[in-house]
Amino acid sequence: MTGAGYRPDAFRQLTFHDAAAAFAKGKDSPRAYLERCLETIAEREPGVKAWVVVNEAGAREAADASAARWQAGTPLSPIDGMPIGIKDLIETRDMPTQMGCEAFRGNFPKRDSAMIRALRDAGAVVLGKTVTTELGQGHPGPTTNPFDPRHTPGGSSSGSAAAVGARMVPAAIGTQVGGSIIRPASYCGNVALKPTQGAINRGERQGLSQSTAGVHAGSIQDMWLVAKAIATRAGGDPGSPSLFGPNAPPVASKPTRLIVMEAEGWAVLDEGSRHAFAAVLDNLRAAGVEILTRDSSPAIEAFERAIADAKAVTNDIGSFETRWSQQNLVEASPEGVSQRFLNRHARGMSMTLEDYRARLLQREAMRRALADLAPLGDALIAPASPGPAPVWEGDRPGQPLAPRPTGDIVYNAATSALGVPCVTVPMTAVRGLPMGVQIIGHPHMDARVTGYARWMLEKVKPVVV
Amino acid sequence: MTGAGYRPDAFRQLTFHDAAAAFAKGKDSPRAYLERCLETIAEREPGVKAWVVVNEAGAREAADASAARWQAGTPLSPIDGMPIGIKDLIETRDMPTQMGCEAFRGNFPKRDSAMIRALRDAGAVVLGKTVTTELGQGHPGPTTNPFDPRHTPGGSSSGSAAAVGARMVPAAIGTQVGGSIIRPASYCGNVALKPTQGAINRGERQGLSQSTAGVHAGSIQDMWLVAKAIATRAGGDPGSPSLFGPNAPPVASKPTRLIVMEAEGWAVLDEGSRHAFAAVLDNLRAAGVEILTRDSSPAIEAFERAIADAKAVTNDIGSFETRWSQQNLVEASPEGVSQRFLNRHARGMSMTLEDYRARLLQREAMRRALADLAPLGDALIAPASPGPAPVWEGDRPGQPLAPRPTGDIVYNAATSALGVPCVTVPMTAVRGLPMGVQIIGHPHMDARVTGYARWMLEKVKPVVV
Repeated sequence: MTGAGYRPDAFRQLTFHDAAAAFAKGKDSPRAYLERCLETIAEREPGVKAWVVVNEAGAREAADASAARWQAGTPLSPIDGMPIGIKDLIETRDMPTQMGCEAFRGNFPKRDSAMIRALRDAGAVVLGKTVTTELGQGHPGPTTNPFDPRHTPGGSSSGSAAAVGARMVPAAIGTQVGGSIIRPASYCGNVALKPTQGAINRGERQGLSQSTAGVHAGSIQDMWLVAKAIATRAGGDPGSPSLFGPNAPPVASKPTRLIVMEAEGWAVLDEGSRHAFAAVLDNLRAAGVEILTRDSSPAIEAFERAIADAKAVTNDIGSFETRWSQQNLVEASPEGVSQRFLNRHARGMSMTLEDYRARLLQREAMRRALADLAPLGDALIAPASPGPAPVWEGDRPGQPLAPRPTGDIVYNAATSALGVPCVTVPMTAVRGLPMGVQIIGHPHMDARVTGYARWMLEKVKPVVV
Repeated sequence: MTGAGYRPDAFRQLTFHDAAAAFAKGKDSPRAYLERCLETIAEREPGVKAWVVVNEAGAREAADASAARWQAGTPLSPIDGMPIGIKDLIETRDMPTQMGCEAFRGNFPKRDSAMIRALRDAGAVVLGKTVTTELGQGHPGPTTNPFDPRHTPGGSSSGSAAAVGARMVPAAIGTQVGGSIIRPASYCGNVALKPTQGAINRGERQGLSQSTAGVHAGSIQDMWLVAKAIATRAGGDPGSPSLFGPNAPPVASKPTRLIVMEAEGWAVLDEGSRHAFAAVLDNLRAAGVEILTRDSSPAIEAFERAIADAKAVTNDIGSFETRWSQQNLVEASPEGVSQRFLNRHARGMSMTLEDYRARLLQREAMRRALADLAPLGDALIAPASPGPAPVWEGDRPGQPLAPRPTGDIVYNAATSALGVPCVTVPMTAVRGLPMGVQIIGHPHMDARVTGYARWMLEKVKPVVV
């Protein structure tokens, strides 16, 4: 599969939810499923570089235990036996947690974060740790796009998105502060859920007010089953009622009206991507969905104005909230962090509490403007990224740092700041690479947007430009 | 000073805010102030046992640096040079953080938590770590009440409250999930601020939705200056706008109307404590303050009904939110935790997500009922504990664990769950021991309740029964 070849209608993603029947009958087993994943990894990993570490022995043991449960008719959950990749920001008791950061090389807390405990309790096979950008920020890791290695897989959930896109695993865990789930999923042809803020317990990573754990997957069904398996067992962040919705994947559901979110990305969409997104809207209209835009209502226009500065809001909020822990890190390991990290840290250190409060007020205003849209449409729709994955060939010695090596958060900053559920839907190919659209809901409408996304995948014609 | 001897009108607490003028003139110095604290510690610590560790050398160095700044006319803040005790749940780069838990013996992360960074940036002298109950929960440490060693100092901020009550330091940091600041302050004759939920950055300790860092002090002025010095530099928890109010201590302000909060404690107040609180209300009325009770308004009656189950709400929310991290601890160090800890952990493990959601809904209903009181009174008033410090002589081998060894949270669970600012005001003596009242505000009204508390201390006759 090369970049020139990606077609959303032809690409067959790896799924798990439809294997259960064969597990129960003994025609397939979680161990055999795992071995197929390991074969794909052996084949693709040298080019894709999605993994920091793969715990083959531990995974085989977990898969065998799962196989025994399926044979006995006592699986722990629908995802019992599912091999899952874990973004290397999240602590696992059996693998190091190095966070893509030199300062954390060899860091091995030997604890399971809340969501990892939940996955194991559900019988899932915690297969390995996937590459993240440095501490989930801008500085990239080695992962390449599974459809063309010259391109970025996106970030910060680079390895999780690429591992799913390369069919190495049916699902992987990502996290998003700015655009770190929805955008890499867009670049790698995944479906992905960034849930309502706080709906999946972030465990030890509670230092940011807008950060969510979410799921990359090859199918809507597996995406939902993983999210639900975690939420049921680990709950959400402290104070969150966690993920609402059925235990089974939401059924496909046709929206009546969708509102286009232009956001800051509209102005920078290239010709092909703009054309692809317009064609998706046309196909939705052809299927009977009404499409509203900022010209349709003063409330939508007001919403667009409210989110016009979302990138700066998101970046400043994150920079201020992390500055004290980053300052500890910079003092302890000045050589262990990148220049990109130091540049961002300097921004946080330059802010005052009043600067931060002003950004919180802007974020609140964004959320109120979104609430005003509730009567107008069932959900919002937007490109999941401002185009397909850009080329990334590394920084050049002696040159200024390349901006945005894992792509631009221009379509994700607003929805991150809004704290709302988003699902990446792989609906288009642009210049032979995937580009997703995203369906965006109001808080706690995770199941609803998942149902709309499922309907789009099942009923709406994908677009190749 | 013995228990028989405590009188709020006669006891002279240790203050710092009024030393600045002498520091600037060279008549006193932060180093001399520190040495006086160390003398008191040398005298009282063998009985009170407030400290896990005192960093004398580091404190002297910091005090000398502060002295130089005062002499140069360049103090970093009004608390430059103030010796402060830090509850041993909070990470400090120069002292271990052992959290009153055998499993964390020797734990030494060599990081400063957000509030510790802020204190150092403000020039404060981080003197030592104060005893906490095990992981801030029920199992007590060795600290005794500074006014009578047979009695508990309260918990979980046992050492911070006792160190201030014993005049060892002018201020100390505490934290409260259920009743861990306001109650030990009541038992030890402190003033104390439990700020609005999130107003002071908890740093690495973000795993609970209702937990606040706050300040024990010998005076309202030092209490406010410490809180403000931290908030200005470290902000609040992620997403919180942090502490509102002036940089200088709020001026004394007379409330027009105060609402009595009976809460779950009303039924268990002993005769002396009930009498003492009634006498405080009489003195307030004599000073011209109108006192409202649950009979005064259906809204107050509805509020009392809404908070009637606050202890269970608070305990269940905390138990559910911490169960995943506690389970890691129990697995890693089964011998390193107490039976009290295991009992509470079992409660968390027995809960489902739906149980937790039900408690969150109860908490939301409590908060709505409080909001309805805003038009009726300026603030609420209640005992800060259901009496003075109870006797605590340790568990007896072979006997069931003694319940509530550090006292009952029955007057603190509601205000913790409400997330509102409270100030302990040392206004009464009951049977020769301190018992505070608390002034309770609406969210973000920290400065207002501080001004009311100051007015009470300055203008309302204290009570000895």
